[in-house]
Amino acid sequence: MEQQRSMCPISCALDLVGDKWTLLILRDLLLGKTRYSELSASPETIPSNLLATRLRKMEAEGLLSRVQYSHRPPRFEYRLTQKGKSLLPTMRELARWSARHIEAAAKPPPPF
Amino acid sequence: MEQQRSMCPISCALDLVGDKWTLLILRDLLLGKTRYSELSASPETIPSNLLATRLRKMEAEGLLSRVQYSHRPPRFEYRLTQKGKSLLPTMRELARWSARHIEAAAKPPPPF
Repeated sequence: MEQQRSMCPISCALDLVGDKWTLLILRDLLLGKTRYSELSASPETIPSNLLATRLRKMEAEGLLSRVQYSHRPPRFEYRLTQKGKSLLPTMRELARWSARHIEAAAKPPPPF
Repeated sequence: MEQQRSMCPISCALDLVGDKWTLLILRDLLLGKTRYSELSASPETIPSNLLATRLRKMEAEGLLSRVQYSHRPPRFEYRLTQKGKSLLPTMRELARWSARHIEAAAKPPPPF
Protein backbone atom coordinates (compact mmCIF):
# COMPACT_ATOMS: atom_id res chain seq x y z
CA MET A 1 0.00 0.00 0.00
CA GLU A 2 1.08 3.54 -0.66
CA GLN A 3 1.74 6.20 1.93
CA GLN A 4 -1.29 8.28 2.92
CA ARG A 5 -1.02 11.97 2.05
CA SER A 6 -2.81 13.01 5.25
CA MET A 7 -5.21 11.60 7.84
CA CYS A 8 -8.18 13.31 6.17
CA PRO A 9 -10.71 10.57 5.37
CA ILE A 10 -11.43 12.08 1.93
CA SER A 11 -7.75 12.10 1.11
CA CYS A 12 -7.25 8.54 2.42
CA ALA A 13 -10.16 7.33 0.28
CA LEU A 14 -8.77 9.04 -2.83
CA ASP A 15 -5.41 7.37 -2.23
CA LEU A 16 -7.32 4.12 -2.97
CA VAL A 17 -10.07 5.03 -5.44
CA GLY A 18 -9.04 8.46 -6.78
CA ASP A 19 -8.65 7.65 -10.44
CA LYS A 20 -10.82 7.22 -13.53
CA TRP A 21 -11.04 3.42 -13.44
CA THR A 22 -11.22 1.90 -9.96
CA LEU A 23 -14.85 2.88 -9.30
CA LEU A 24 -15.86 1.65 -12.77
CA ILE A 25 -14.39 -1.77 -12.00
CA LEU A 26 -16.23 -1.62 -8.68
CA ARG A 27 -19.45 -0.72 -10.52
CA ASP A 28 -19.07 -3.76 -12.78
CA LEU A 29 -18.40 -6.09 -9.84
CA LEU A 30 -21.42 -4.64 -7.99
CA LEU A 31 -23.47 -5.39 -11.10
CA GLY A 32 -22.44 -9.06 -10.97
CA LYS A 33 -19.51 -9.28 -13.35
CA THR A 34 -16.74 -11.52 -12.01
CA ARG A 35 -14.32 -12.29 -14.82
CA TYR A 36 -11.48 -10.41 -16.45
CA SER A 37 -13.02 -10.77 -19.89
CA GLU A 38 -16.30 -9.28 -18.65
CA LEU A 39 -14.56 -6.34 -16.98
CA SER A 40 -12.51 -5.81 -20.10
CA ALA A 41 -15.64 -5.69 -22.30
CA SER A 42 -17.27 -2.67 -20.59
CA PRO A 43 -18.15 0.27 -22.85
CA GLU A 44 -15.41 2.49 -21.41
CA THR A 45 -12.84 0.08 -22.93
CA ILE A 46 -10.25 0.09 -20.19
CA PRO A 47 -6.76 -0.68 -21.53
CA SER A 48 -5.78 -4.21 -20.50
CA ASN A 49 -2.60 -3.16 -18.66
CA LEU A 50 -4.60 -0.65 -16.58
CA LEU A 51 -7.26 -3.25 -15.77
CA ALA A 52 -4.62 -5.71 -14.56
CA THR A 53 -2.86 -3.02 -12.50
CA ARG A 54 -6.08 -1.79 -10.91
CA LEU A 55 -7.25 -5.32 -10.06
CA ARG A 56 -3.93 -6.06 -8.33
CA LYS A 57 -4.10 -2.78 -6.37
CA MET A 58 -7.75 -3.36 -5.42
CA GLU A 59 -6.85 -6.84 -4.16
CA ALA A 60 -3.88 -5.47 -2.19
CA GLU A 61 -6.11 -2.81 -0.63
CA GLY A 62 -8.75 -5.37 0.36
CA LEU A 63 -11.47 -4.09 -1.98
CA LEU A 64 -11.79 -7.42 -3.78
CA SER A 65 -10.61 -10.99 -3.56
CA ARG A 66 -9.36 -13.17 -6.37
CA VAL A 67 -10.68 -16.73 -6.48
CA GLN A 68 -9.27 -19.43 -8.73
CA TYR A 69 -12.10 -21.31 -10.44
CA SER A 70 -10.08 -23.38 -12.91
CA HIS A 71 -6.64 -24.95 -12.51
CA ARG A 72 -6.03 -26.09 -16.09
CA PRO A 73 -5.89 -23.51 -17.48
CA PRO A 74 -5.57 -21.27 -14.39
CA ARG A 75 -8.52 -18.86 -14.31
CA PHE A 76 -9.73 -16.45 -11.69
CA GLU A 77 -12.87 -14.69 -10.58
CA TYR A 78 -12.96 -11.34 -8.81
CA ARG A 79 -15.38 -10.76 -5.97
CA LEU A 80 -15.90 -7.65 -3.88
CA THR A 81 -15.10 -7.85 -0.19
CA GLN A 82 -17.32 -6.17 2.39
CA LYS A 83 -14.96 -3.18 2.25
CA GLY A 84 -15.51 -2.95 -1.51
CA LYS A 85 -19.27 -3.47 -1.32
CA SER A 86 -19.48 -0.71 1.28
CA LEU A 87 -18.65 1.85 -1.39
CA LEU A 88 -22.17 1.43 -2.80
CA PRO A 89 -23.64 4.49 -0.99
CA THR A 90 -20.80 6.65 -2.32
CA MET A 91 -21.40 5.32 -5.85
CA ARG A 92 -25.12 5.97 -5.53
CA GLU A 93 -24.57 9.60 -4.50
CA LEU A 94 -22.04 10.10 -7.28
CA ALA A 95 -24.49 8.69 -9.85
CA ARG A 96 -27.28 10.92 -8.53
CA TRP A 97 -25.09 13.99 -8.78
CA SER A 98 -24.01 13.05 -12.26
CA ALA A 99 -27.53 12.42 -13.54
CA ARG A 100 -28.58 15.83 -12.24
CA HIS A 101 -25.60 17.90 -13.28
CA ILE A 102 -23.96 16.31 -16.32
CA GLU A 103 -25.95 16.67 -19.49
CA ALA A 104 -24.46 13.68 -21.28
CA ALA A 105 -25.09 11.27 -18.40
CA ALA A 106 -27.91 8.76 -18.75
CA LYS A 107 -30.87 9.60 -16.55
CA PRO A 108 -32.13 6.64 -14.56
CA PRO A 109 -35.90 6.26 -14.33
CA PRO A 110 -37.57 7.85 -11.29
CA PRO A 111 -37.54 7.46 -8.36
CA PHE A 112 -33.84 8.20 -8.18
CA MET B 1 -14.40 19.62 -21.88
CA GLU B 2 -13.21 16.14 -22.68
CA GLN B 3 -15.18 13.45 -24.44
CA GLN B 4 -17.27 11.22 -22.17
CA ARG B 5 -16.20 7.57 -22.13
CA SER B 6 -19.79 6.37 -21.91
CA MET B 7 -23.22 7.60 -20.82
CA CYS B 8 -22.91 5.80 -17.46
CA PRO B 9 -23.38 8.45 -14.76
CA ILE B 10 -20.52 7.02 -12.67
CA SER B 11 -18.21 7.18 -15.66
CA CYS B 12 -19.33 10.72 -16.56
CA ALA B 13 -18.69 11.86 -12.98
CA LEU B 14 -15.22 10.29 -12.95
CA ASP B 15 -14.39 12.09 -16.21
CA LEU B 16 -14.67 15.28 -14.07
CA VAL B 17 -13.60 14.31 -10.57
CA GLY B 18 -11.80 10.95 -11.01
CA ASP B 19 -8.35 11.90 -9.77
CA LYS B 20 -6.52 12.31 -6.47
CA TRP B 21 -6.83 16.11 -6.21
CA THR B 22 -10.13 17.52 -7.49
CA LEU B 23 -12.23 16.35 -4.52
CA LEU B 24 -9.58 17.63 -2.09
CA ILE B 25 -9.80 21.10 -3.65
CA LEU B 26 -13.56 20.78 -3.43
CA ARG B 27 -13.25 19.79 0.25
CA ASP B 28 -11.18 22.91 0.96
CA LEU B 29 -13.65 25.18 -0.84
CA LEU B 30 -16.55 23.55 1.04
CA LEU B 31 -14.65 24.30 4.28
CA GLY B 32 -14.49 27.99 3.38
CA LYS B 33 -11.11 28.43 1.75
CA THR B 34 -11.23 30.74 -1.26
CA ARG B 35 -7.67 31.71 -2.22
CA TYR B 36 -4.93 29.99 -4.15
CA SER B 37 -2.49 30.38 -1.25
CA GLU B 38 -4.95 28.71 1.14
CA LEU B 39 -5.57 25.80 -1.24
CA SER B 40 -1.87 25.45 -1.78
CA ALA B 41 -1.21 25.25 1.99
CA SER B 42 -3.31 22.12 2.65
CA PRO B 43 -1.52 19.20 4.34
CA GLU B 44 -1.55 17.05 1.19
CA THR B 45 0.81 19.62 -0.43
CA ILE B 46 -0.56 19.64 -3.95
CA PRO B 47 2.12 20.63 -6.49
CA SER B 48 1.44 24.16 -7.73
CA ASN B 49 1.18 23.21 -11.41
CA LEU B 50 -1.43 20.55 -10.57
CA LEU B 51 -3.42 23.00 -8.44
CA ALA B 52 -3.48 25.55 -11.28
CA THR B 53 -4.48 22.88 -13.83
CA ARG B 54 -7.22 21.46 -11.63
CA LEU B 55 -8.67 24.91 -10.84
CA ARG B 56 -8.85 25.73 -14.57
CA LYS B 57 -10.54 22.41 -15.34
CA MET B 58 -12.99 22.80 -12.43
CA GLU B 59 -13.89 26.27 -13.68
CA ALA B 60 -14.34 24.98 -17.26
CA GLU B 61 -16.59 22.18 -15.97
CA GLY B 62 -18.72 24.59 -13.95
CA LEU B 63 -17.70 23.26 -10.52
CA LEU B 64 -16.36 26.63 -9.37
CA SER B 65 -16.23 30.24 -10.45
CA ARG B 66 -13.24 32.56 -10.29
CA VAL B 67 -13.86 36.05 -8.95
CA GLN B 68 -11.34 38.88 -9.19
CA TYR B 69 -11.10 40.66 -5.84
CA SER B 70 -8.09 42.89 -6.55
CA HIS B 71 -7.08 44.59 -9.80
CA ARG B 72 -3.62 45.85 -8.81
CA PRO B 73 -2.19 43.33 -8.42
CA PRO B 74 -4.74 41.02 -10.09
CA ARG B 75 -5.96 38.49 -7.52
CA PHE B 76 -8.75 35.95 -7.60
CA GLU B 77 -11.00 34.04 -5.27
CA TYR B 78 -12.49 30.65 -6.05
CA ARG B 79 -16.06 29.88 -5.10
CA LEU B 80 -18.04 26.69 -5.61
CA THR B 81 -21.03 26.81 -7.90
CA GLN B 82 -24.23 24.97 -7.05
CA LYS B 83 -22.97 22.09 -9.20
CA GLY B 84 -19.80 21.96 -7.09
CA LYS B 85 -21.60 22.29 -3.77
CA SER B 86 -23.92 19.47 -4.78
CA LEU B 87 -21.05 17.02 -4.46
CA LEU B 88 -21.30 17.31 -0.66
CA PRO B 89 -23.43 14.15 -0.18
CA THR B 90 -20.91 12.15 -2.24
CA MET B 91 -18.04 13.56 -0.16
CA ARG B 92 -19.89 12.73 3.05
CA GLU B 93 -20.42 9.09 2.02
CA LEU B 94 -16.81 8.79 0.90
CA ALA B 95 -15.60 10.16 4.25
CA ARG B 96 -17.90 7.77 6.16
CA TRP B 97 -16.60 4.81 4.19
CA SER B 98 -13.02 5.89 4.74
CA ALA B 99 -13.41 6.40 8.49
CA ARG B 100 -14.89 2.92 8.78
CA HIS B 101 -12.58 0.99 6.48
CA ILE B 102 -9.20 2.74 6.34
CA GLU B 103 -7.18 2.38 9.49
CA ALA B 104 -5.05 5.51 9.01
CA ALA B 105 -8.02 7.79 8.40
CA ALA B 106 -9.02 10.19 11.16
CA LYS B 107 -12.24 9.17 12.88
CA PRO B 108 -14.72 12.01 13.24
CA PRO B 109 -16.56 12.23 16.57
CA PRO B 110 -19.95 10.48 16.74
CA PRO B 111 -22.61 10.78 15.44
CA PHE B 112 -21.13 10.20 12.01
